[in-house]
Amino acid sequence: MSQRYEESRLYRIRHSAAHIMAEAMLERFPEALIAIGPPIEDGFYYDFSLPRAITEEDLQWVENRMKEIVRENHPFTYREVTPDEARAQFQGQPFKLELIEDLVNGREDENGNRIAEPAAKISFYTQDTFTDLCRGPHVPATGEINPDALSITFKLPAGAYWRGDEKRPQLTRIYGTAFETKPELDEYLHALEEAKKRDHRILGEKLDLFTFSPLVGKGLALWKPAGAMLRHTLETWLRDLLIERGYRPVVTPHIANVNLYKTSGHYPYYSASQYAPIQVDEEEFMLKPMNCPHHIMIYKSEMHSYRELPLRYSEFGTVYRYEKSGELTGLTRVRGFTQDDAHIFVTPDQLLNEFKEVVRFFQHVVGTLGITEFRARVGTRDPESDKFVGDDALWDAAAGAIVQACQELGLPHTVEPGEAAFYGPKLDFVLRDVLKREWQLGTVQVDYVLPARFELEYVAEDGTRKRPIMIHRALFGSVERFVAILIEHFAGVFPAWLSPVQALLIPITDRHIEYANSVADKLRARGLRVEIDASKNRMQAKIAAGRERHIPYLLIMGDRDAQNGTVSVRLRTDEDLGALPVDEFVTLAANVISSKSLELK
Amino acid sequence: MSQRYEESRLYRIRHSAAHIMAEAMLERFPEALIAIGPPIEDGFYYDFSLPRAITEEDLQWVENRMKEIVRENHPFTYREVTPDEARAQFQGQPFKLELIEDLVNGREDENGNRIAEPAAKISFYTQDTFTDLCRGPHVPATGEINPDALSITFKLPAGAYWRGDEKRPQLTRIYGTAFETKPELDEYLHALEEAKKRDHRILGEKLDLFTFSPLVGKGLALWKPAGAMLRHTLETWLRDLLIERGYRPVVTPHIANVNLYKTSGHYPYYSASQYAPIQVDEEEFMLKPMNCPHHIMIYKSEMHSYRELPLRYSEFGTVYRYEKSGELTGLTRVRGFTQDDAHIFVTPDQLLNEFKEVVRFFQHVVGTLGITEFRARVGTRDPESDKFVGDDALWDAAAGAIVQACQELGLPHTVEPGEAAFYGPKLDFVLRDVLKREWQLGTVQVDYVLPARFELEYVAEDGTRKRPIMIHRALFGSVERFVAILIEHFAGVFPAWLSPVQALLIPITDRHIEYANSVADKLRARGLRVEIDASKNRMQAKIAAGRERHIPYLLIMGDRDAQNGTVSVRLRTDEDLGALPVDEFVTLAANVISSKSLELK
Repeated sequence: MSQRYEESRLYRIRHSAAHIMAEAMLERFPEALIAIGPPIEDGFYYDFSLPRAITEEDLQWVENRMKEIVRENHPFTYREVTPDEARAQFQGQPFKLELIEDLVNGREDENGNRIAEPAAKISFYTQDTFTDLCRGPHVPATGEINPDALSITFKLPAGAYWRGDEKRPQLTRIYGTAFETKPELDEYLHALEEAKKRDHRILGEKLDLFTFSPLVGKGLALWKPAGAMLRHTLETWLRDLLIERGYRPVVTPHIANVNLYKTSGHYPYYSASQYAPIQVDEEEFMLKPMNCPHHIMIYKSEMHSYRELPLRYSEFGTVYRYEKSGELTGLTRVRGFTQDDAHIFVTPDQLLNEFKEVVRFFQHVVGTLGITEFRARVGTRDPESDKFVGDDALWDAAAGAIVQACQELGLPHTVEPGEAAFYGPKLDFVLRDVLKREWQLGTVQVDYVLPARFELEYVAEDGTRKRPIMIHRALFGSVERFVAILIEHFAGVFPAWLSPVQALLIPITDRHIEYANSVADKLRARGLRVEIDASKNRMQAKIAAGRERHIPYLLIMGDRDAQNGTVSVRLRTDEDLGALPVDEFVTLAANVISSKSLELK
Repeated sequence: MSQRYEESRLYRIRHSAAHIMAEAMLERFPEALIAIGPPIEDGFYYDFSLPRAITEEDLQWVENRMKEIVRENHPFTYREVTPDEARAQFQGQPFKLELIEDLVNGREDENGNRIAEPAAKISFYTQDTFTDLCRGPHVPATGEINPDALSITFKLPAGAYWRGDEKRPQLTRIYGTAFETKPELDEYLHALEEAKKRDHRILGEKLDLFTFSPLVGKGLALWKPAGAMLRHTLETWLRDLLIERGYRPVVTPHIANVNLYKTSGHYPYYSASQYAPIQVDEEEFMLKPMNCPHHIMIYKSEMHSYRELPLRYSEFGTVYRYEKSGELTGLTRVRGFTQDDAHIFVTPDQLLNEFKEVVRFFQHVVGTLGITEFRARVGTRDPESDKFVGDDALWDAAAGAIVQACQELGLPHTVEPGEAAFYGPKLDFVLRDVLKREWQLGTVQVDYVLPARFELEYVAEDGTRKRPIMIHRALFGSVERFVAILIEHFAGVFPAWLSPVQALLIPITDRHIEYANSVADKLRARGLRVEIDASKNRMQAKIAAGRERHIPYLLIMGDRDAQNGTVSVRLRTDEDLGALPVDEFVTLAANVISSKSLELK
């Protein structure tokens, strides 16, 4: 799909709009230094070094000017140039000059590894007064762009650095988007507004789910009570499902000797995301970036019989991976996260069936949460790359089993060569949320390599020693990211069983607090999570506060309730169920909760 | 109590026996180099550098010779000597010569800190042919020792290093003990045998509870499925109790910026047990040695009202502390462990009551496990030490509250000055196990210091900002150590509710496996943890294997059971309950489990 986007007309429209934005910006800020301006998934951006902070007024001026340039219908013209011509054109534009030198000489990363060869040619694209160093493609002329389907914006935080490197100059990134029609733009802008309302960072703060502290560290979430309760509820649910399905829990430490990862072969692949080693006596330890080698050492601690297979070890394992601070985002990009990890050791005969069981398990889990739109992305080996290790025939057999499993289960899937793990092909579950955004959830991976590297064995029925195959799998993927997705999916309005507080008890005046306490005891005894609002606030304010927090059940109690043993039940949707005997409410709520219903009654 | 031991006759007997052992050893091994030989809690030892490995025969010879020396009734004589006399006496004994130089010059540790001043005098004790560098005290003559109450032994692993330093020579440590009477010795040796049978390291292996891997790292436990299930069962139980008692869960990362611990003031106190820092960009991070500063940052993330207090944050928080590899022991001395930690923020008015609630909570938890023999060790400030920070009046008030709480709850307690945390006085729960050994479990600590360092506040009823007091508390203490204690306490024979597998289903032949599967489904649906032994083994062998694993219920099923819908119930005690309808067994077992009974019926 991404392949097709890069070849699409929309892609050329957006790329062209980026150049038009740069032209307009240079008119507004003649002293601006220009960096780069690519099309991106949902639009385009351009990075500038500006003499002053940009204002809403500037943006409005630039957007209007862009529309004029569009209406003037200037052609985009292509020209190949010599390095000297390029340097002359961009005199006084140091970012462009740096790009030109990279094109001429090729490029190395900070460790001296070659990451780009010298370019075969250098080319310009020009429209109207603006020329950019560019390989295209573009639309033939600015008039191809629909001025009514064009919009630019400025997103905070602005943290764009030249070449993404925090040690280089900070730039102002102006985002824009362009569609072919105005209704498409409107729908997109509406979805953006909606996304902002659902932003898990904002809701996480508002609903007191989690926080971050610079003193603890960037990208390291602190789960507040409401968030920890939500998370524990998910984990407890999954833990029970795991046991039902024959998984066996294990618990492993958060550090290990680096030799463990060298033996597993993870070490070189994770070098960019590994934390620096910790010296302990004469050994080097490392924060664990993945759980699999730990589970393997448990497997290896005793001899196993074919009777024990499939042997399924599961753990909510917290792993630590370095991310650049500029890339950290709420709970979706963090430096420490908990995988609902499992490793399954199977015989070759069991592989296909076990793989299908994992997919069915995933379908059950997300189905319970009302998530029905997802697809499978099958990552296979790129035969051209040397990243992938192990026997070709085994790779093909495993990839075949994955595709066969998808087909037999009617699971929509795409095959993407080169997207495998280094040790084997995999299937990633990709969710499409209510805003049509895609999120990667869990993964199922087939692995013949680690069992060989660690010389894993089982005793087969005939008494010989055989090598098991490993399945690596996670359903949520990262608990942190999964919670972020759920927050956005539900816009913070969680089903009752997941709500950190399930019922808010609202005594109308102080003299009803005692009754409220007795009701609270009854509800707690049935496992409900309740809170009493014993503040001096008026009833309507208490109801409003409860609805603001999306608490499913608001139980108002006054004199008549206290006399009759009832509660007046208001749902967070504002629906009024009237006065119910306490027992009747408890039965209603307990049924909704235990059935994990997405409804409240 | 330890004070009294050092002044006791038993202490002098054991110290003297150590010298007698050295005399006998030098007769057996004239080339032996002698190191040191102090009395210890339950006996004495002496370290030797020997020309060859010691054998059982050597030990027997030495023990017999010791008894002879005892019977010969040689006096212990004391003599003060000059450094040169001392050097002459111990020519060819390099360890003794090193000790003499330290006595003469004083001693510095490896960082150059003075740890001992030069001694005022150097003294010898001599009995028979043997003279040792020694300050005493000793019994007047060897005949004071009861030869029938004397015993020596050699414990594996032998890992004793000269001065406890792994870089210095490895020595052979011979242990011995002496009592005043033979029955006392016999009781001690019996308890030792019993302790060996209950050793959690041996049972942990045998019952497949946990393992260690050198490739993962020393002192880092890998919990196997049975152990993880046991641990999760304990944690789930405690989590429910915490919620019932108004604790609110939080989840925090396993690393933090070192500045967090510098702000809290933990940093200097934990320098020996902290792991080396991890460089991340321009910051230094550290594996967390304790959870409190993390919980404090959650408290600080929002403003709190007096209405919220006591505010109780709880977390099963895994912390990492360095221990010397020679000191690591099974699950009791590890490098990473999980605290059932909580931090309670209270007003001064709430302190005493909340403290008592924590003690009651502890009594409930250990009472459920059948642990009734424990005492409280109250650690207070040593006024002479500069380790303890904060206001004296607050220290005294807090210590007073702790002692008052013990008195009001009738909790046996001892007060030990100097044993407080740096930030406040504490109460440690000390368990006496069935072998009369003492184990430290959880702790309750009062803290005025960290709330001040982090400037914590709440809004009081009058609208002013006030500072809360913190209570740090853990009941299990370390989950790892607590499980080790439970293993030894129960000798691996856990109550049904804690047993990793609660019922073993034993089909008599292959044709009963189908019935066993249907019974297993029924039991699992009621939450029982069951396993089927579908091996080809004979019934008696299956029963024996189940009893070996201490599985509470062994359910045998043959033709008659399959026909009648019954199971023939054998308890692990070998008691036979006969054939019971499946439902009747389920009800029996479910009641035993849900009531956390220590009995099986």
